[in-house]
Parts: sequence; C-alpha cells; structure tokens
Amino acid sequence: MTKKEFELTDHLKLIGTDNLPEIKEGDALTSLFFDALKEKKLKLEDGDAIVFTSKIVSKSEGRVVDLSGVKPGSDAERIAKELDKDARIVQLILSETKEIVRAERNVIIVETKEGFVCANAGVDESNVEEDKAVLLPEDAQRSASRLKKEIEERSEKEISVLISDSFGRAFRDGVTGICIGVSGIPALLDRRGEEDRFGKIARITKEAVADEICAAANLVMGEFKEGIPIVIVRGLKLKRSEGDIKEVLFNREDDFFR
Amino acid sequence: MTKKEFELTDHLKLIGTDNLPEIKEGDALTSLFFDALKEKKLKLEDGDAIVFTSKIVSKSEGRVVDLSGVKPGSDAERIAKELDKDARIVQLILSETKEIVRAERNVIIVETKEGFVCANAGVDESNVEEDKAVLLPEDAQRSASRLKKEIEERSEKEISVLISDSFGRAFRDGVTGICIGVSGIPALLDRRGEEDRFGKIARITKEAVADEICAAANLVMGEFKEGIPIVIVRGLKLKRSEGDIKEVLFNREDDFFR
Repeated sequence: MTKKEFELTDHLKLIGTDNLPEIKEGDALTSLFFDALKEKKLKLEDGDAIVFTSKIVSKSEGRVVDLSGVKPGSDAERIAKELDKDARIVQLILSETKEIVRAERNVIIVETKEGFVCANAGVDESNVEEDKAVLLPEDAQRSASRLKKEIEERSEKEISVLISDSFGRAFRDGVTGICIGVSGIPALLDRRGEEDRFGKIARITKEAVADEICAAANLVMGEFKEGIPIVIVRGLKLKRSEGDIKEVLFNREDDFFR
Repeated sequence: MTKKEFELTDHLKLIGTDNLPEIKEGDALTSLFFDALKEKKLKLEDGDAIVFTSKIVSKSEGRVVDLSGVKPGSDAERIAKELDKDARIVQLILSETKEIVRAERNVIIVETKEGFVCANAGVDESNVEEDKAVLLPEDAQRSASRLKKEIEERSEKEISVLISDSFGRAFRDGVTGICIGVSGIPALLDRRGEEDRFGKIARITKEAVADEICAAANLVMGEFKEGIPIVIVRGLKLKRSEGDIKEVLFNREDDFFR
C-alpha cells in the first residue's frame, strides 16, 4: 500500500513581502497583507503557503506588554535573582508557562501553555520599544486558522497559513524557524507505509513539513523578522488538510528528553 | 557596532535535480551533477548553495555495508535483544558511536564519532538493496569541502555545498532536514551585536542557517531523497566563509539536554 500524500516538486520559490507598516494592536493583518501584495503586483496562487512571523501576529493581537505594569511575584523574584534576569520578564515567562523544563544560566526553558518547549516561553524584547516585551500569540493555531480563512475568502485561492517563530534546539547551537500554528496543510507528513526506491516500506518516517517551511521562510525573514514579516512559499505539493500544530507536539510519554 | 553578515533577500528559489542515476561506490558526484545540470539546461550562479543528500555522498564513498558480513559483538547482541532490533544493525550503530545518549523503545540515540546527536547513528536501511545499510559519510565536513572545491573549479562560480540528512528532534515529533557538512558559508550566523528596528542590540541570536537551508531543501527532496538528491538554493545573500558544521555542535558543557 502506498499513500500518496506528497508529490515531488523540483521548483520552490520564496517571496518575501517587505512593505508592511509597523504593526499595532487591532491592525487587520489580512488587509495589510493584500495591500502589500497589490503594491508589489503579486497575486496569490492555489497551493501557496503563507508564513507570518509570530511577532506581527502578536502585535496585531495586542500581545505587547508594558514592563512598567508587571508586578513580579515571589517565584519570579527568586528565579530572576538566581539567573540574573529582569524579574518582570521572569514574571511574564511564568505567566505563559505550564512547566519549567530547565532553568540554567540566563535561560528558562519551559513548556508553554500551548505545549511548545522553548526558551523564555517565547517572551521577546527585540523589535519592540524599550521597556516592552512581546508574548507569543495566545493561541497561534487559532490565529493561523483565522488568517487562512480570511485570506482564502478574499483571494478565492486555496492557500495555507503558517505562523513561525525562532526556537533554539537541543544538541545544536543556534535558532531555526519553527511553526507554532498551521492551517491548510498537515504539520506532519506521515510517510509510513510508503515504498522507497527498492520497494522497501518506510518504517518511522514522519516529516515535520510545517517546521521545514518555517525554517525556509526564516532564511528570507532574517532573524530580526520585521523587515520581511510575511513570506509566500510557492510550489509545494502538499495535500490539503485542516492542519494542527499539535500533530508535532509529543505526548509527554513519547518524549525521550523530558 | 553593526555587523553586516547578512542582507535581506526577498526572493529565494529552490531547484531540484531529479535526473541523476543510482549512485555507486566510486562515482564522481561532481561530474554526475554537471551532467544533470547540462541535461536540464541549468547553469550555476555565484552565491548558489548546493545541497546534497548524505545518502548519495555515502554511496559514492562506499559507505554501504552488506549486513551478511557484519558480526555483532556481545554489546550489540545484548542491546539488540533489549530493543528488539537486528543485532547486525546495532553493531553498525555502535561502530559509528562515540556515546549512547538514550536507548529506548526501538531507537538508540547516540552521539556519532563526528559529534552529531541522532537516532541510530544515521545508519539507514531505506533506499538501498535488501540486507544492506547505508552509513553516514565518514567525514561529511571533508566531503562538503571537497565537493565545493570540485564544483567551484569546474563552474568558475563562488558556490557553497551543504550535505543534508534528516534527524528527529527533542520535544517535537517528525524529522527535518539538517546539515552535517557545510563549506563556503557559515553554519551559524552570529547576529549578536546587530541592532533591531528599535536600535536595541540582539543578545543571543545565532541563526543556524545551514540547518535552515537543509530543511528548505528537504521540502524539495522529499523524505525518500533519491528522487531529487541535489537541490540548488539560489538567492541567499550570506557572506563567504570557510564554513564548518562544528560551529553548531555544542560543547558538552553548553548543552542543557545532555
């Protein structure tokens, strides 16, 4: 039995949109995206995967916190002292956290309430004014689904939306783009059951395509992101799927490293 | 002080070469690659990053092992029994291993002699004849340097070469393309010291661009690889660099998860 979830493509194109304004709470990202497309004389095509950096999704959803209003609790004060961090930032991290995985040197690695294992719960002080911090979208999966719906309605094309962030990894230095919300394609391509070139059956291969797409988009966005906050990935031949980032999140008991 | 290691690019193109023959020991990959380019009427350009799947590099370097010739030692026999694996495969894994990181369920996660933390030391039974297994290249960094040199000599273009494999990750299900050898660009883009849009200085951002390039290429290669074993990534604006995959490998004491 061969499942055909995937067709080989020999051309893939990434197109960055560098002409969006600074995003503020309440901004309609979909409208701004279509304005940017129009200005660049770009049209969406069926199958396009549209990657949004989490930073602009967060900003549009009002997930920017003024640090002067944050009152650290006693846990935050203690951890901040141990790790030599700003106690207000630690308080924000703890508020976003389901469980602390590691707290060492200047970094707190947590599982967020959404289930992502990452440094500092994604709380980020870059690309925002002094004394402010940006949190991850409250429910990036929901944001992805909403953006996909809005963009499909307006474009009348079948597209997918991914929301990306940059996470560090175990065992390797450096961050890479990863996916925190996906709608329209699968997060995980399950290729078990497919035959290889020699007719043997693949045993354990599930490919994290949503993360690969966000890693690719990150090459265009660059690490400071907001120069090019939205990237269109054109030429993928993935099957349509509701899509849910939870597909890549391990059940706790399946995770060797927890 | 702003370091300028990176320029934003708003267009990136991935071009797969699907017209290579089945690779055998001793095959000159560079010649076969140029034959494939010629057939497709493709020409290399300055700045191209050329991603080779490790599988064809291994095959050309004779890293295919006939399992009938493998004699498992007592450690291999014991682990094979515990994990319900083929003892000959376990023997191959142990021969490639510096240290076992985890051995649970059907998987042995090791640090290879080259320093890569991955499942089964990269020993792979897919895309090869029955009763054979493919090992990772003996020194993928050296292979990348050699291929880069050969391709630059023949093309007279400044290019980079990356050798990719698919590894699983901690905390997230599914494999993604990652880099095991890179020459011509940095493995890790160190962006500390650069200013963000608000003039703030980035503190911890090192971007694992070589891994992101291999993840992107994997979307074109697909998980069974050898349909499209070489992908050209065009449009990157990375600085030239000797490049060494060891840049992304943590010192043991810097790795939170070991």
